[in-house]
Amino acid sequence: MAAPNLRPDHACLIVHGKDQPGIVAAVSALITRNGGNIVALDQYSEEPTGGAYFQRVVFHRPNLAAALPEIQADLEATLGSAFDLQWSLTDQSTPKRMAILASQQDHCLLDLLWRHRRGDLPVTVPMVISNHTSSAEDVRSFGVPFFHVPSVPGPDKSASEAKILELLKGNVDFVVLARYMQILSPAFLEQLGVPVINIHHSFLPAFIGAEPYRKAKERGVKLIGATSHYVTGDLDEGPIIEQDTIRVTHADSAAELARRGADVERQVLSRAVLWHAEDRVIRHGNHTIVF
Amino acid sequence: MAAPNLRPDHACLIVHGKDQPGIVAAVSALITRNGGNIVALDQYSEEPTGGAYFQRVVFHRPNLAAALPEIQADLEATLGSAFDLQWSLTDQSTPKRMAILASQQDHCLLDLLWRHRRGDLPVTVPMVISNHTSSAEDVRSFGVPFFHVPSVPGPDKSASEAKILELLKGNVDFVVLARYMQILSPAFLEQLGVPVINIHHSFLPAFIGAEPYRKAKERGVKLIGATSHYVTGDLDEGPIIEQDTIRVTHADSAAELARRGADVERQVLSRAVLWHAEDRVIRHGNHTIVF
Amino acid sequence: MAAPNLRPDHACLIVHGKDQPGIVAAVSALITRNGGNIVALDQYSEEPTGGAYFQRVVFHRPNLAAALPEIQADLEATLGSAFDLQWSLTDQSTPKRMAILASQQDHCLLDLLWRHRRGDLPVTVPMVISNHTSSAEDVRSFGVPFFHVPSVPGPDKSASEAKILELLKGNVDFVVLARYMQILSPAFLEQLGVPVINIHHSFLPAFIGAEPYRKAKERGVKLIGATSHYVTGDLDEGPIIEQDTIRVTHADSAAELARRGADVERQVLSRAVLWHAEDRVIRHGNHTIVF
Amino acid sequence: MAAPNLRPDHACLIVHGKDQPGIVAAVSALITRNGGNIVALDQYSEEPTGGAYFQRVVFHRPNLAAALPEIQADLEATLGSAFDLQWSLTDQSTPKRMAILASQQDHCLLDLLWRHRRGDLPVTVPMVISNHTSSAEDVRSFGVPFFHVPSVPGPDKSASEAKILELLKGNVDFVVLARYMQILSPAFLEQLGVPVINIHHSFLPAFIGAEPYRKAKERGVKLIGATSHYVTGDLDEGPIIEQDTIRVTHADSAAELARRGADVERQVLSRAVLWHAEDRVIRHGNHTIVF
Repeated sequence: MAAPNLRPDHACLIVHGKDQPGIVAAVSALITRNGGNIVALDQYSEEPTGGAYFQRVVFHRPNLAAALPEIQADLEATLGSAFDLQWSLTDQSTPKRMAILASQQDHCLLDLLWRHRRGDLPVTVPMVISNHTSSAEDVRSFGVPFFHVPSVPGPDKSASEAKILELLKGNVDFVVLARYMQILSPAFLEQLGVPVINIHHSFLPAFIGAEPYRKAKERGVKLIGATSHYVTGDLDEGPIIEQDTIRVTHADSAAELARRGADVERQVLSRAVLWHAEDRVIRHGNHTIVF
Repeated sequence: MAAPNLRPDHACLIVHGKDQPGIVAAVSALITRNGGNIVALDQYSEEPTGGAYFQRVVFHRPNLAAALPEIQADLEATLGSAFDLQWSLTDQSTPKRMAILASQQDHCLLDLLWRHRRGDLPVTVPMVISNHTSSAEDVRSFGVPFFHVPSVPGPDKSASEAKILELLKGNVDFVVLARYMQILSPAFLEQLGVPVINIHHSFLPAFIGAEPYRKAKERGVKLIGATSHYVTGDLDEGPIIEQDTIRVTHADSAAELARRGADVERQVLSRAVLWHAEDRVIRHGNHTIVF
Repeated sequence: MAAPNLRPDHACLIVHGKDQPGIVAAVSALITRNGGNIVALDQYSEEPTGGAYFQRVVFHRPNLAAALPEIQADLEATLGSAFDLQWSLTDQSTPKRMAILASQQDHCLLDLLWRHRRGDLPVTVPMVISNHTSSAEDVRSFGVPFFHVPSVPGPDKSASEAKILELLKGNVDFVVLARYMQILSPAFLEQLGVPVINIHHSFLPAFIGAEPYRKAKERGVKLIGATSHYVTGDLDEGPIIEQDTIRVTHADSAAELARRGADVERQVLSRAVLWHAEDRVIRHGNHTIVF
Repeated sequence: MAAPNLRPDHACLIVHGKDQPGIVAAVSALITRNGGNIVALDQYSEEPTGGAYFQRVVFHRPNLAAALPEIQADLEATLGSAFDLQWSLTDQSTPKRMAILASQQDHCLLDLLWRHRRGDLPVTVPMVISNHTSSAEDVRSFGVPFFHVPSVPGPDKSASEAKILELLKGNVDFVVLARYMQILSPAFLEQLGVPVINIHHSFLPAFIGAEPYRKAKERGVKLIGATSHYVTGDLDEGPIIEQDTIRVTHADSAAELARRGADVERQVLSRAVLWHAEDRVIRHGNHTIVF
């Protein structure tokens, strides 16, 4: 299927590290001398001088694919020596490969598949993995392979994690937990080696852990929210990509909170996925810079 | 000064307690036979039958003041015997007396005074008490008495609380903590005997306690919020009246969060104060019903 | 398929007309003497006395179905004689029958079908009619009949409208235009005889008519919106049920506005449909009262 | 009075014009060779190649004041010859001089003065001019000069406009119409020669002209809004800087819409003023780029 918002002959360059004078000048001179025209540039420095430095540049370059090796070499030579920086260069005509892990709740899963089919997400979806079979038919109707990996009861998840790893390894650029209700072990995350994005059904750090809507009802809050974040070894503590809230009232039951919260969850997750797929999100310790 | 949104010949009746069939019928028949016309009625039952029951009725009654004693007696006779209910009846042409406690930050304080002067709040403001003198001139320019009660260093607040109590006792119907940075003791709250409304500068229950903007910056949230709640003996745990959030970014420093949060704080507090003053808020355990 | 938020033994009574003292008392006494317990009651009077009057009551009544004829007769006797009021009584365990008219854009259509399948809308969907065939397979995968009625070019829509009317007549309680890009004639609306709800892709009354996103881009607005309203003979002028807006920037193209606006459209339309299906919306001239 | 968010030794450079490869490189090289370190950079190109180009750079440069003439000369030499660009360079330690024109409604006026006093706006306020005297005492309590220039009845505003012009001319960098209810003539705007920012009490382009809250009530909208824009010769048609909306209901009277709208107006206006004062807004035809 076509993914219409891929951008032929556009590259995205992310640069971050220690700030020092001249980085923007060096990077933009490099792009110019390699035949590129800067289309969008965002830059952020934590401090006036000497703090952390973050930059995202999108540039247009005719025949980009052929020129990429040379640009990479130039980046290596320019940024590797004079500056203390990390960089990554991606071709915006190449979609990222996104796997989705899901459970019984299908709202986030189907929303992502539907957005992908519309061409709103610059990704391919090589597979959906679920610990339930209820969504199999829906997923396959989008032309996406579906794999069922049941969750074994008990604390030892290693068997099912091994199966999931076997499916994902080498086949995906990032993974989305679309209300996947299992906690992934640190070992799994390390072996997977690609970013994992989760949606938590509360405004973190409020209501960490299980059953946030029940807790929200008990506390009597007047807004509920959702948070999308990168998954780390600490439950619900990873770097936040996006959050949002909506208004509720005393008359909403916990079930009604869950029903209404589903709308915020899929909005928040879809924005986080889009921004990640467009290389707009830079991780920095436990924070994100979103350009 | 005039308080234009007082409503002559309008009464507000709050009824709550144990639900049972016929309450609405009994209350509305009572209002009709006492010459009143119902202008607004909100009702909420927790369960289809037998749960908690909440009702707010505003009715128009010519020559209300003269009729009030008779209506009160009828309520006593009607609701006291056949139903297990609490009720309160207020004359909406009588403003509530609101005292404000403040510290150095003046944004919530001045916003309330300004809204009051515009006639947007159905209250009088008999006094402002602050543990700093910085706002004295501003407060008095609104025609409002200002009292300075310094906070004594150390854990024993009893001396300053005694002074505050002496000023407030009998003179006010409710108290607003407009970023008053002192914790009030349970003994003080009990002796005061009127509702106390606080504004906390976070989306509770996230970032309970001191320095919520610094904590929000450290966690890397993408929204900040404010919460107005009734004060109880448990810090930041009282029943929530109103909350709201606004969007922030990685580029906002903790100081910028505080600057931007000030706008949410004064919006949220002013709504909570307005609703309390209009008898729209019913406390129920650690929750509020807001009609 | 089950529609879980239907409420067995609950009835919704809508009363509106000319305000006069005693309506609430009469209605609630009627409900009590017919064995009902009021679960929710909203009431609104335009003026303190003598203006327009609106009331919505939900009550629980064991064995409701059997009791309905008697309650209807009592309403007729009580409200028909002493008051100048209109009323309608609906059994909340009976879903409304909702037809959807659609064109090529599928986001509102699929969102409604998906919400219905989840049990979030108290409706049945007897049919989807579209002037394109592109959504046929998707619609049928939800177990919903799909009918293709092509739009004939030119101003005379009477042939296709006659076909649509034949399908709808007698089979539906209301119709939703889910981005159906054809204007319905006054004659069609009159013969149809049930409410028609539209979603317009702008914050009305801004950008009436065709291509609102292009117009929004041209005007340089900083927010875009969506409006759901009842359809009348005047294009985009019917009573508004719900509206919402989201933030956009100078960098968003008209295509990006359309992509992002699709999210607001489906949110706004789904709320309007839910509220209509729950009998929360009362039309009053060119306005709506939403309880 | 101190204006704490002025930034010593920081300059803001705005560049816009026709896009061509190498602009970012040339500008950033220029900043580097003049001893500056880029702290924030935003760039936007309308098209991949050859469209309109917009850039905002903030850079830190020790002893900026002394270096400014040299940097200006370098900009002249660099951008004037090789590129078809306009640019402006401002010292962010120098506040802009902002005059406020007001009428009887004081909410926007007092909000700006209060924000200024808190140090939230990088401006000085050399004067407030009003066609009413009601705010004189309040304005002067902020230490700001107040001038009363009555509006002459009838269409000929030339006499009062001449007086206002005499006061403003040469003394201000921009003018804010804080609910100033008079229309300024094109001749006045031309002679004034500095930007004029207005707040309109609706979500433009809905409800252009007088009495937008009354019109909003008549149309039955579910949200009301406010719009801040640069003033041009066409009423309510100038480039929009910022907009926002809030939710209202059928129960809000036109007076209540005005009361609640006042909150949105002052929020929207204060953001527009802040962004203008920080050189974040670039006018482009009838649009704005807001960085």
